[in-house]
Amino acid sequence: MMQQQLNSYLQNMTLEEKVDQLLQLVGVFFEDAETDGQITGPMESLGITEKTVRNVGSVLGIAGAEEAIRVQQAHLSKNRLGIPLLIMADIVHGFKTIFPIPLAIGCSWNVQLAEESATIAAREASVSGVHVTFAPMVDLVRDPRWGRIMESTGEDPYLNSVFARAFVRGFQGKDLTNDTDRVAACVKHFAAYGAGEGGRDYNTVDLSAWQLREYYLPSYKAALDEGCEMVMTSFNTVEGVAATGNKRLMRDLLRDEWGFDGVLISDWAAIKELIPHGIAEDEREAAQKALLAGVDIEMMTSCYNGHLPELVRSGQLDEALVDEAVMRVLKLKQKLGLFDNPLRGADPEREREVVFCEAHRAVAKELAVKSCVLLKNDSVLPLNRSQHIALIGPFAESGDILGSWSWSGSQEEAVQVIDGFKSKISSSLLSVATGCSIDEISEEQYAKALQAASQAEVIVLALGERSDMSGEAGSRSDIRLPQAQLELVKRLKTLNKPMVAVLFNGRPLDLHGVIEEADAVLEAWFPGGEGGAAIADLLYGDAEPTGRLTMSFPQSVGQVPVYYNHFNTGRPQLDPNTKERYVSQYLDVPNEPLFPFGYGLSYTKVDYDSVQLSSDTLNPGQALTVKVRVTNTGTRPVEETVQFYVRDISGDTVRPMKELKDFRKVLLAPGESREVEFSLAEPQLRYHHADLSFDSDSGEFAVFTGPNSRDTTEGRFRLVKETGK
Amino acid sequence: MMQQQLNSYLQNMTLEEKVDQLLQLVGVFFEDAETDGQITGPMESLGITEKTVRNVGSVLGIAGAEEAIRVQQAHLSKNRLGIPLLIMADIVHGFKTIFPIPLAIGCSWNVQLAEESATIAAREASVSGVHVTFAPMVDLVRDPRWGRIMESTGEDPYLNSVFARAFVRGFQGKDLTNDTDRVAACVKHFAAYGAGEGGRDYNTVDLSAWQLREYYLPSYKAALDEGCEMVMTSFNTVEGVAATGNKRLMRDLLRDEWGFDGVLISDWAAIKELIPHGIAEDEREAAQKALLAGVDIEMMTSCYNGHLPELVRSGQLDEALVDEAVMRVLKLKQKLGLFDNPLRGADPEREREVVFCEAHRAVAKELAVKSCVLLKNDSVLPLNRSQHIALIGPFAESGDILGSWSWSGSQEEAVQVIDGFKSKISSSLLSVATGCSIDEISEEQYAKALQAASQAEVIVLALGERSDMSGEAGSRSDIRLPQAQLELVKRLKTLNKPMVAVLFNGRPLDLHGVIEEADAVLEAWFPGGEGGAAIADLLYGDAEPTGRLTMSFPQSVGQVPVYYNHFNTGRPQLDPNTKERYVSQYLDVPNEPLFPFGYGLSYTKVDYDSVQLSSDTLNPGQALTVKVRVTNTGTRPVEETVQFYVRDISGDTVRPMKELKDFRKVLLAPGESREVEFSLAEPQLRYHHADLSFDSDSGEFAVFTGPNSRDTTEGRFRLVKETGK
Repeated sequence: MMQQQLNSYLQNMTLEEKVDQLLQLVGVFFEDAETDGQITGPMESLGITEKTVRNVGSVLGIAGAEEAIRVQQAHLSKNRLGIPLLIMADIVHGFKTIFPIPLAIGCSWNVQLAEESATIAAREASVSGVHVTFAPMVDLVRDPRWGRIMESTGEDPYLNSVFARAFVRGFQGKDLTNDTDRVAACVKHFAAYGAGEGGRDYNTVDLSAWQLREYYLPSYKAALDEGCEMVMTSFNTVEGVAATGNKRLMRDLLRDEWGFDGVLISDWAAIKELIPHGIAEDEREAAQKALLAGVDIEMMTSCYNGHLPELVRSGQLDEALVDEAVMRVLKLKQKLGLFDNPLRGADPEREREVVFCEAHRAVAKELAVKSCVLLKNDSVLPLNRSQHIALIGPFAESGDILGSWSWSGSQEEAVQVIDGFKSKISSSLLSVATGCSIDEISEEQYAKALQAASQAEVIVLALGERSDMSGEAGSRSDIRLPQAQLELVKRLKTLNKPMVAVLFNGRPLDLHGVIEEADAVLEAWFPGGEGGAAIADLLYGDAEPTGRLTMSFPQSVGQVPVYYNHFNTGRPQLDPNTKERYVSQYLDVPNEPLFPFGYGLSYTKVDYDSVQLSSDTLNPGQALTVKVRVTNTGTRPVEETVQFYVRDISGDTVRPMKELKDFRKVLLAPGESREVEFSLAEPQLRYHHADLSFDSDSGEFAVFTGPNSRDTTEGRFRLVKETGK
Repeated sequence: MMQQQLNSYLQNMTLEEKVDQLLQLVGVFFEDAETDGQITGPMESLGITEKTVRNVGSVLGIAGAEEAIRVQQAHLSKNRLGIPLLIMADIVHGFKTIFPIPLAIGCSWNVQLAEESATIAAREASVSGVHVTFAPMVDLVRDPRWGRIMESTGEDPYLNSVFARAFVRGFQGKDLTNDTDRVAACVKHFAAYGAGEGGRDYNTVDLSAWQLREYYLPSYKAALDEGCEMVMTSFNTVEGVAATGNKRLMRDLLRDEWGFDGVLISDWAAIKELIPHGIAEDEREAAQKALLAGVDIEMMTSCYNGHLPELVRSGQLDEALVDEAVMRVLKLKQKLGLFDNPLRGADPEREREVVFCEAHRAVAKELAVKSCVLLKNDSVLPLNRSQHIALIGPFAESGDILGSWSWSGSQEEAVQVIDGFKSKISSSLLSVATGCSIDEISEEQYAKALQAASQAEVIVLALGERSDMSGEAGSRSDIRLPQAQLELVKRLKTLNKPMVAVLFNGRPLDLHGVIEEADAVLEAWFPGGEGGAAIADLLYGDAEPTGRLTMSFPQSVGQVPVYYNHFNTGRPQLDPNTKERYVSQYLDVPNEPLFPFGYGLSYTKVDYDSVQLSSDTLNPGQALTVKVRVTNTGTRPVEETVQFYVRDISGDTVRPMKELKDFRKVLLAPGESREVEFSLAEPQLRYHHADLSFDSDSGEFAVFTGPNSRDTTEGRFRLVKETGK
């Protein structure tokens, strides 16, 4: 379809029809719409008519090919111009085949598998009738109190950008029009939703324009550079203005400066929420501000629907702004091939073959294996198949391991931890007990746990947060394991048996109360539907733990935020044991996190030689080669993630102590030694100056390589630009 | 002395002599300087010569008239041009007569007494030879982990501004040249030092330009509007650049936009700290950046001294910038009358009369009485003189009640809590025990406490933080009372006797573990040298508790930051008991603080009628009258602090739920009723828009009156500006 035809659609639309294209409703409206034009509860509460529903541009949350086909066909039969619906949904870490939560996927540092997970999610979603997913979420996160941390890949702008691109590639493929196994991606939440004050969801965000550009915006930009079709606004404020009404952020920066011409959609009800935010007196002003700010589609409130026509007719809004927004929606429909093929991938028969198929589940298991992070291992792992195991804890026999944002996933079909153990050892070697529920411990539960433990050589604890303790609106002020579970750990510790803790949680936790008590700790996050199988493989050494943290684990909530790429300050604590007073530190807790960014153990030991640089100077146009030799000195093979960081010693603004520039996965057989090479050129050293210009400066730089952001060796070079600094 | 004469000084100075004027050293250099030109340790470490010391512009930390006179005279005898030294010191909450810490002074809401405390501090400092105090500290604070919170008056920009002005008036008086009982004030720390990430001292600050101007800068501006002579830079970064090298913040905003032409001094070593901050490669670049940013005096490092001459001679810095800085220093010396009267107020004889005199101490006691905040009282206070009291706790017999920044104060001469009790009851009615030390509890200590408690009708606990647990570099990640003291409370609670807790601390604490257990809790902060007497007066009802919190007390550190003037967000928690998920809240703690801003109890009850407005519209140029009737329904007199808040319902940016606009102290006899009147005009409704312009908008506003920021009644009006909104 040509632009001309889209223009003709637009020309034929009434102003009301145009505005209806900018509305998004949930599926229930469409079911109701079939019942002969009756105004029902939801419609009434939004103040919309059946006519609007007939003309509406998009729907969210419909799942299943049959329903999607029914809704689309009904819609086309009623829509005057025959414009198909866009069907959108939150496909965040899998559709029916549930992958680990994004924070866990981040910890895999496995870009190929991340992309594949999105490819599979797209395939399952598309065949089920979905055209657009509200993913990837690429918000930079530093505060583990925030529940939606589980939906991000972590605290590093570079790594988040790499994953943002991988997810977009996986969802969208290379040809959205013809590859109906793909869906359009919608990067969210623009912008800086992850920086909510106090980690409280929806709370105020306040960052300098400089911090915003240097650390928070790059991952959104990366998704757009990869061709991401859509952007979703965030709920928070940016520089004092709610994002959804923030013209400077979206019209000026996203649209004009970055040139984004795709569809910008509000988050759920976010336009109307400009009223409680206090930047609009009423729905009319909210509609006006959101459209001026550049929002095309309004999700689940009716400010546009109720007020844009009058705003245009009274001359307070230029109809060209409405036309632009409508054209973007039409173009996306065109790009998805919906005008020619309104049912697109939806296919009930193929749906039954493809969705939750063995091949997909195998990838979910592989990604779960790669996502778990071994935090501690005092020679108790891997387990031996001859050992008698007591599997204890609220996650021993629980399907609540999918994590939040897995609405089409099935907890009933999840591979539980106990299933994993049953696949490894005979039931005579396995005693199982709940021990406690998530929040409470009873004497009866404990007695059973004690009985199970008494027979065992090794206690395996399956502990964690309920999945609804993270996710949207799942903020916690206390980031320890729930008290009942800490009590269970404390009591079982008195048995003096080897104890392994497997943790299920959607955020970095304060691990005191389990990290010292357990002999080994495996951070399993919410590993998705194949979690139990993946965990058993790891615990029994049928797979190697290779995950690396992408968020620092704080010592306690009182230390938050703690992140690896912090600034040095003017009074750095040079020695963590310093008795000096006037340095930047707490009196009662170290500056260092409990576990740093990039951290994770394996069952073997990899030694790192010192970093080697090809030169001690770098000129623009050239590249520096940075090498490090890594040697597997243990007896098991491993896929090591070699990490490469840079520090700009002095700049126009302060610069982080380290920033990740690259990483390599290296397979190392026992005893094998390999040289890993990174390349560094001037463009990688550019950053935002105080005037927001983006450039590098001549001067000294440090490079670091190592197995994590803490245990590195350092080299130095100077960037020499002709003009000097 | 005329400008002409100052010009002639400048013209006669060598470049090196000019640069030396910009250096500030501690007193020890001058002692050494007397010993015949020898290069000693401190000089050597700074790389400066005896010649520099001879020409140096200012000294800090000298105390005592005799020493000041000796140093000044020695200096004048050696200085080629006979330019007197400026003597500066940290006189923060009293010189020898120690007043409550500033956070406590804030809680008095007593502007007159605050001013008087500064007047007295200035009188004692000046007679002891000091010319300039590094006060007031007016940093807005929201994070109780930060140790220097004790040095601020709290979380409200308006109240901080009111106190900033009061302190400046008190220190400086009306005629610095002739009123030698006054000292020049130096407002600090410019800017936003209070917003350090994680409450860790010296840590990164990152705020939007909008937040900075609207909330953090007003108190500095208020001090300058009151004529404050000096400004000190802060240690933190502002928009990515360390404040001390931040041209945009100081040269552009402070100097050019605000027109500040007084002396700008670095904080201790802050110029050299541009190197660890990573915005200068070496001392030379640090010197260059600081001077370009507008810093006149370098405190205790020698970047200027070592490099400005060469930077000027090589043409990389304009000598005019050096001249400007020197002229500002000379002008301040002139303003203080030092050219005519280099010894100024220093007078050993008068020093003995004035310093720590009874009259001064009486004011310190009065301010301590007004600063304590009664947080809870379940009918146990006031105490009865016939009751047998067990006074227990590490602060029962401790002089460590002055608080940080009281370097000339004497803990030995402080009126301890036990002294206060002894002045009220006979020793036969008083049993005293330590109970525990600050951090540790022994069985022996507890046994003695138990014995003391066993005889008593009422247990009075004197608990808290050591003074060095707050103050500079005194950040804590755990803001509860130390565990040993919570243990003491828990054990004594089992006695089931009425229990009163008096708390000594430099920050809002998480009071769980004492607030439920004690029947009454008096927050005494660090009340200064007369603290014990003030506390006894309050506990026995010889004085009425009238203090009101100027910082919210959080439920726990996991809830930080919590402050009253927050924004509504787009998804406010409308009901604290809501079961609704998708609102801005934590799963495990309320949004509300334990005690809100403005909170405090008295021994009587004051009822507030509903707020009354003179009109439901306000036009520019007019004023609205806001009235509330308050009635003392109890049996004791009280000085009630009636608080007046406003909310702008909708604006160009988000606006706080409430912002303090005014308050009145009203004396109410038992049964007395009075109408309190506030006036509100359009200029009070101006705020910073997203484009940083400062204006008001037409639209709806709410007004609130009440005894604190929570328990208010609300009225509404519309601001109607001709142009409409």
